[in-house]
Amino acid sequence: MTHMTEKTFLEHLKEMSLISQTLGLLEWDVQTGMPEAAAEHRSEVVSYMSGKHFDLANGKKMTSFIDYFSENLAELSPFAQEVFADVKESYELNNNVPQDRIIAYSKALSKAHQSWVQARDAKDFAIFLPALEELIAFNKEFIPYRQKNQRTDYDVLLDLYEPDMTVAKLDDIFETLKEGIISLRKEIAEKGTPPETDFIHRYVSKEAQKEFVLEVIEQLGYDLSRGRLDDTIHPFMLGINRQDARITTRWNEHDFLMAILGVIHEAGHGMYEQNIDEKYDHTPLSRGTSMGIHESQSLFNEIIVGSSRAFWQRQYPRLQAITGDTFADIDFETFYRGIKQSKSSLIRIEADALTYPLHIIIRYEIEKMIFNEEINLADLPQIWNDKYEEYLGIRPENDLEGILQDVHWAGGSFGYFPSYALGFMYAAQLYHAMNQQFDVEAVLASEDYSRIIEWNKKHIHQFGASKKPNELILNATGEALNPTYLIDYMRKIFFDVYQVQ
Amino acid sequence: MTHMTEKTFLEHLKEMSLISQTLGLLEWDVQTGMPEAAAEHRSEVVSYMSGKHFDLANGKKMTSFIDYFSENLAELSPFAQEVFADVKESYELNNNVPQDRIIAYSKALSKAHQSWVQARDAKDFAIFLPALEELIAFNKEFIPYRQKNQRTDYDVLLDLYEPDMTVAKLDDIFETLKEGIISLRKEIAEKGTPPETDFIHRYVSKEAQKEFVLEVIEQLGYDLSRGRLDDTIHPFMLGINRQDARITTRWNEHDFLMAILGVIHEAGHGMYEQNIDEKYDHTPLSRGTSMGIHESQSLFNEIIVGSSRAFWQRQYPRLQAITGDTFADIDFETFYRGIKQSKSSLIRIEADALTYPLHIIIRYEIEKMIFNEEINLADLPQIWNDKYEEYLGIRPENDLEGILQDVHWAGGSFGYFPSYALGFMYAAQLYHAMNQQFDVEAVLASEDYSRIIEWNKKHIHQFGASKKPNELILNATGEALNPTYLIDYMRKIFFDVYQVQ
Repeated sequence: MTHMTEKTFLEHLKEMSLISQTLGLLEWDVQTGMPEAAAEHRSEVVSYMSGKHFDLANGKKMTSFIDYFSENLAELSPFAQEVFADVKESYELNNNVPQDRIIAYSKALSKAHQSWVQARDAKDFAIFLPALEELIAFNKEFIPYRQKNQRTDYDVLLDLYEPDMTVAKLDDIFETLKEGIISLRKEIAEKGTPPETDFIHRYVSKEAQKEFVLEVIEQLGYDLSRGRLDDTIHPFMLGINRQDARITTRWNEHDFLMAILGVIHEAGHGMYEQNIDEKYDHTPLSRGTSMGIHESQSLFNEIIVGSSRAFWQRQYPRLQAITGDTFADIDFETFYRGIKQSKSSLIRIEADALTYPLHIIIRYEIEKMIFNEEINLADLPQIWNDKYEEYLGIRPENDLEGILQDVHWAGGSFGYFPSYALGFMYAAQLYHAMNQQFDVEAVLASEDYSRIIEWNKKHIHQFGASKKPNELILNATGEALNPTYLIDYMRKIFFDVYQVQ
Repeated sequence: MTHMTEKTFLEHLKEMSLISQTLGLLEWDVQTGMPEAAAEHRSEVVSYMSGKHFDLANGKKMTSFIDYFSENLAELSPFAQEVFADVKESYELNNNVPQDRIIAYSKALSKAHQSWVQARDAKDFAIFLPALEELIAFNKEFIPYRQKNQRTDYDVLLDLYEPDMTVAKLDDIFETLKEGIISLRKEIAEKGTPPETDFIHRYVSKEAQKEFVLEVIEQLGYDLSRGRLDDTIHPFMLGINRQDARITTRWNEHDFLMAILGVIHEAGHGMYEQNIDEKYDHTPLSRGTSMGIHESQSLFNEIIVGSSRAFWQRQYPRLQAITGDTFADIDFETFYRGIKQSKSSLIRIEADALTYPLHIIIRYEIEKMIFNEEINLADLPQIWNDKYEEYLGIRPENDLEGILQDVHWAGGSFGYFPSYALGFMYAAQLYHAMNQQFDVEAVLASEDYSRIIEWNKKHIHQFGASKKPNELILNATGEALNPTYLIDYMRKIFFDVYQVQ
């Protein structure tokens, strides 16, 4: 029998952390260049390590820790109490669902992914429908086990990705955001002058893009001695630990913005992980606190900083120097307006900053219908297409460019999508608060971005998962999440770009 | 209590294998690009995983398996008996040495490595001497625990790297080889015409070298879908498993031969691991059987094939095509003779094929003195330098280019060096045997190297560690290791290159 002490508890968590770090590297290697034929051997290694981690997180020893310290919390130091609260929350979330149902769900998930791929090939949602129905049924079945007094079923799912987020809050927030964006787009369409954008597709070699962006992300605070940049098909950031937060990108030599902004985005995620207080090392608090807050940091880097006028005023001459004559005939004003073009798109991941939240709101509204209302799932493509027509003025011609575009539902992720829009709203609100303390544009126009970096570190990064999203935002900005900051920000940016008087 | 069955035994080994594979990837990542600041976190992960592996290999459960199946061997299938024999051998080797002495030795090893680095900086063996004395004392202390009826102490060490190799055999073999090489070198010096070699240092871009060599190693049988090529300071092959045998190299744009031959060498190691019979998956038999046999495969690829006249006759036009005008003025004959130049060097890893075994023989003779005779370790630099002067005709000016050049002793590896020369002799003997069955030069002059690949696979690779080196060589060539094949081979090659009539 293990002694129930703070020391043994933290040692147990450290063991979990060491296995997690291993799983992180195994996954990074799969994504970045494991020999293709090694997949089967690798999956045996991963499932062994995952099993060991699962046992430590949910087995008898963990149950003893949870039971003992729930009764004897005072035996833990304040630091360990903070850690224990997080561990207990995860434990309860996972342990209430019967084990056999979790295993059945895993099987349904792999089947669903295959069926999603087949449906995409045929551009036909009907092929994916039975698998989707099954996944939704599982998620509905699990909701009672995960209930923490939430008011609706969908609230339970939201809470998995953004703690304490609710339908009641999001309905108001997204309604305000949707109206704000739609009216802004209307004004631009009526009174704006579209920018010139042809130059965006000029050839820029991968080497030039890489040289440019590596210096940029270091200036912005991403520490390459505690990370690295790799090539993958789907860009991501993977935080193995605070000292090893790796990022990846995909390069397109006829679309330099994709990789450059993509790398700045992932570097934002990376900086968050790199700057978590070292006291949380080897505990589950050494991670970003939620998907939404993580996305706030990547979007802050990519949009608020990396797509801003002041930033590019400094960086454009560097880009020009690195790319020879490529942009010699494009003055700064033309360049800046061009890269900020906004245009309706059917595909979420190709959307610009102004239209992106509408893609998310459509998904939110549909997920809410699925879990809180009685709808016929066969009607989803129709509902999806109608919403695209209503909000974005374009209609998918088939399911591939419509409801089959995202992998999330096929992966059982319901309640995840709102995080993307939450991140953007958080970012704009943080930017507003930062501007109360110093002139952010002036910093971006200078050579030294450290005031921005330090502000984010102080208000967000250092805490890891020790504070919930709403607590972080309240402390950092003095108020709860408020969508008007994003609308105001968009109005300022896009009126400028589209020269709306 | 675990049930003692073949199934539980093999499951236990599989668990060890899964952890080993993980340790392999962790190490590969350290060597190929782990962020530098991640070293401390990584070492915690590695030491945790190593500890788990050690427990499985040496703990109570393994002890039960060893005890039970030693008594009840007939309960295992012939396949499992083969595996058990190997497991039991490793277990006894490790388990006899007292645990506390192993730990003390580990500490001495890290101290020794530091002191070796310091000694190198100062080019002064005296700085390294106390640490070396300590390591040698540990190794002498461990010899009785590892004794399997060997006649001398140094035999015990040889057996660790090349099972069943003995001083009695090696004394004869190395004496023959030494005399053969020295007399060959004498003839060349007296009657030969040195080749032109300036062109060797012409600029060849890394990209061109890589394009050239990647196609070469695939032709030679290295499967890139079950491996990959990375850049490191010290080239190596790391077999994570049969489906994932990775190789690395160092590029020098003013010495194309270094990387090209280096990659071919590592690919030879890689092919060995890739071609082990899949029935040995997840058992300790899924590895090369010894350092010497492993080296035979890398040197076969690098020297017998990759440095041969017939091979380059086919490949030189490709190299010329890839490198533009670089070698336009160098005809094939000049090229081939140039790349085969032989010249005394003080540094082992810079030595050519003809002189390389002399470097090994010097180390063998010194190690034998250390363990089988009473010598004063302080005299080692003097002994080393005298031998270089005697065998190679050159004398180190300081300890850095003398006795401090290799990391092996600082890492506690005594008895390892002979493997390099054994590998070369095995390779020449295998080449001779292969030539009895088909004309190897004719295959090398063709587009299809599969007969060579299949021969090595059939006679060496497939068996993994299920056969001992002497058994493999006897079965493949019809006789025990015989150094005359290498001497004959060298004579043929270097008389041709140096145009000795």
